Amino acid sequence: MTSPTNVPSPGASRPPTRSVTVNANLHDASLDVMNFLNEIAEAYPRAISFAPGRPLESLFHVEDHLAHLTEAVSDTAAQQGTRPEAVWQALGQYARTNGTIADVIAEQLRIDEKIDVVPEAIMVTVGAQEAMAVLLAGLFDPAKDVLLVSDPAYVGISGLARLLGIAIAPVPVEDDHGLNPVVVEQAIAAASRQGRIVALYTSANFSNPLGYSLSHQRRLDLLDVCARHGVVILEDDAYGMFAYDEPRRPSLKALDRRGDVIYIGSFAKTIFPGLRIGYLVADQQVPPANIPLAKMLSKVKSLVTVNTPPLLQAMVSAALRRTGGSLEPWVAPKRDKYRRQRDAMLAALQRELQDTPVTWNRPSGGFFLTVTLPFEFGPEELRLCAEVHGVVVTPMRCFCLACRRLTQVRLAFTYVEEPAIDEGVRRFARFVRERLRSGVERTAVGSSR
Amino acid sequence: MTSPTNVPSPGASRPPTRSVTVNANLHDASLDVMNFLNEIAEAYPRAISFAPGRPLESLFHVEDHLAHLTEAVSDTAAQQGTRPEAVWQALGQYARTNGTIADVIAEQLRIDEKIDVVPEAIMVTVGAQEAMAVLLAGLFDPAKDVLLVSDPAYVGISGLARLLGIAIAPVPVEDDHGLNPVVVEQAIAAASRQGRIVALYTSANFSNPLGYSLSHQRRLDLLDVCARHGVVILEDDAYGMFAYDEPRRPSLKALDRRGDVIYIGSFAKTIFPGLRIGYLVADQQVPPANIPLAKMLSKVKSLVTVNTPPLLQAMVSAALRRTGGSLEPWVAPKRDKYRRQRDAMLAALQRELQDTPVTWNRPSGGFFLTVTLPFEFGPEELRLCAEVHGVVVTPMRCFCLACRRLTQVRLAFTYVEEPAIDEGVRRFARFVRERLRSGVERTAVGSSR
Repeated sequence: MTSPTNVPSPGASRPPTRSVTVNANLHDASLDVMNFLNEIAEAYPRAISFAPGRPLESLFHVEDHLAHLTEAVSDTAAQQGTRPEAVWQALGQYARTNGTIADVIAEQLRIDEKIDVVPEAIMVTVGAQEAMAVLLAGLFDPAKDVLLVSDPAYVGISGLARLLGIAIAPVPVEDDHGLNPVVVEQAIAAASRQGRIVALYTSANFSNPLGYSLSHQRRLDLLDVCARHGVVILEDDAYGMFAYDEPRRPSLKALDRRGDVIYIGSFAKTIFPGLRIGYLVADQQVPPANIPLAKMLSKVKSLVTVNTPPLLQAMVSAALRRTGGSLEPWVAPKRDKYRRQRDAMLAALQRELQDTPVTWNRPSGGFFLTVTLPFEFGPEELRLCAEVHGVVVTPMRCFCLACRRLTQVRLAFTYVEEPAIDEGVRRFARFVRERLRSGVERTAVGSSR
Repeated sequence: MTSPTNVPSPGASRPPTRSVTVNANLHDASLDVMNFLNEIAEAYPRAISFAPGRPLESLFHVEDHLAHLTEAVSDTAAQQGTRPEAVWQALGQYARTNGTIADVIAEQLRIDEKIDVVPEAIMVTVGAQEAMAVLLAGLFDPAKDVLLVSDPAYVGISGLARLLGIAIAPVPVEDDHGLNPVVVEQAIAAASRQGRIVALYTSANFSNPLGYSLSHQRRLDLLDVCARHGVVILEDDAYGMFAYDEPRRPSLKALDRRGDVIYIGSFAKTIFPGLRIGYLVADQQVPPANIPLAKMLSKVKSLVTVNTPPLLQAMVSAALRRTGGSLEPWVAPKRDKYRRQRDAMLAALQRELQDTPVTWNRPSGGFFLTVTLPFEFGPEELRLCAEVHGVVVTPMRCFCLACRRLTQVRLAFTYVEEPAIDEGVRRFARFVRERLRSGVERTAVGSSR
């Protein structure tokens, strides 16, 4: 099924091929972060990895989803009075640029998120990442526009902006409370000297990488600040349904009354990532003819991937039809499992590191937890952890734009199950204690986070 | 399964949402071509359409491919000594950026195309379109680089360059012989005053839209000219396996000895388009560290779609494993069918229009045929054809960059089956005769093609 990636090449004897120069932005070191993390994971396959922000594979039911799809195709054929073969054939054809399941997604957003939008405002994309690519390519003029990004940030947005040559203005966040609307307003004032500020990219729910969640009041204030300054919010809500403690707060888009928010969603975590099905919600209008923004952006989508695979869209549709349109029954078992894994990681940290100066947060949702060390943690420490101690974590600095969070690491608690969580934290604690004993921490005391 | 696209909105009563400006390139009229053509097709659903470059749905065997996938998963599980469930779960997870079936594609290229490349030079993409997006974003600096494009051109490449702000230098082609290497050299000289020429985008086999195929000598000469001037060729070979008359000529990449060609392939036509599986072959190196180009471009791919859906990659792999690695057994019945449809269209044109000044080519492969009229054919004629005569064709000017092919139309013979081809051509001929009788052709005599 799959391919080895590093087998010796049968063509080792062929002559060296010519050189080609690339877009200089590709040499930007920030674009190497993901490669670096992947390489570490590949180099130490037996290490316990808290690095990848991946869902747990044992929670996927791919074969069941295929069966549901087959069932849905039969039902559709019966309704249409045609053969199932004809329905399958239609799913094999090119399809509508903005997707074939916008109505299903609109209904799911209404039920689960209290977001009320028309299907015409929705574009189905190849994962949330393509939604970001369509939005940055479609909304920004790299020569003069600026993107505000909460800092630290998902590398998928900052890397994309760098690739396209779009100026980024980082907005620092508070560890536990996230974006401070007062700081956002200051950042808008400062960045407006750089160019025209088009949008702010952020997550209100259980952000990647820090794990914080905005208070209800901050959400309202953030909407006000951005509306006053004409800044659109690109809200990435990949983790919104993974609230472990309190009832969920409404997303920025659910609070949006004026069309100040473009919403980016994904089925990667709620169903499974291999689907590569995400979407954007853009219910704004484009002057002068007041064309719906999602329709305008379909020109971009058609130039990136033509359309999202109809078979996989139909798989999402089939899953949601089985549950009356809600994702909740699909998410509930995953959320329960991840809550237990979060609790296991918190308990292990407590058990292993309570008598040290190490601290950590208690994320109320999402995939990630932040640990703050009394010493710096960078590439060298990462390699040492992986090689000697058999555990992989991510230096928080990998996600920093202007911030320096030299002593923090990000731990994902979703990808590794409970016994391995205990063992991984034990290994990490062993590294920490060794480092503390060696006195290296003294050189880093007082260093910036 | 699917969604109505123009249902009355339940939110008709909500307040108008705010305006958002977009990248000014989105207002470029050339980006509206595809929308315009789609709208025509939607507005006249009962017209016979020779417009879309789509394969015939009755030749898809989507359900069979799903069954082959299930079989392949069982085989893999047996080989690995694991449960099929675990293999399915792995297919549901995030996967390697450049794809999981590069070895399968390398083997297919070796067998079917006599192209000899290592799997590491291959990136699997969401259709050939994403390959183009990755290449333009990854290779070009919009501020100073120029893309040569054979003219007329596939709108997916010219639209993408416009979206990204990359300067295009059109290279006019000859109707029956395609790119003339002498003209290419002149175009390189002229365009080098505009900026650094990075690449030439073209197709050697059965090009879209004109249907020509380069002679073997022209292929060799084209490679020489481009090598001499340091211009990389982006060879789009979507139609290469659809040769109806002579044995196939080797693609530019098969003739490439120095790494002057980046090859763009697709399974959209050979298997089915809904897969959205394409790929690029980039076996060049990037200085100063001589990083393999495909690896360098993986940074771009990860920012566009993260990775191509593993389930659909596995479906391609399963299909090719059944046939010993070759696409040929999958393509043969399609090619036979399309050959018959081409012949039916040629016969119908002969029958209906032989006594008129209308001419047409006889494409030796691909999906398209060019008709040259003794009068201009533009948006108004298109609408008239669709509305009054019930047939849709594409004005060739839609594909023109600098060319003016005002009297030509493109007819696709793949999407409509034989009896409808006869009837569609009859309708088109009725329009032509009416127009000839009305004497409108006199106003257009002598106009440029």
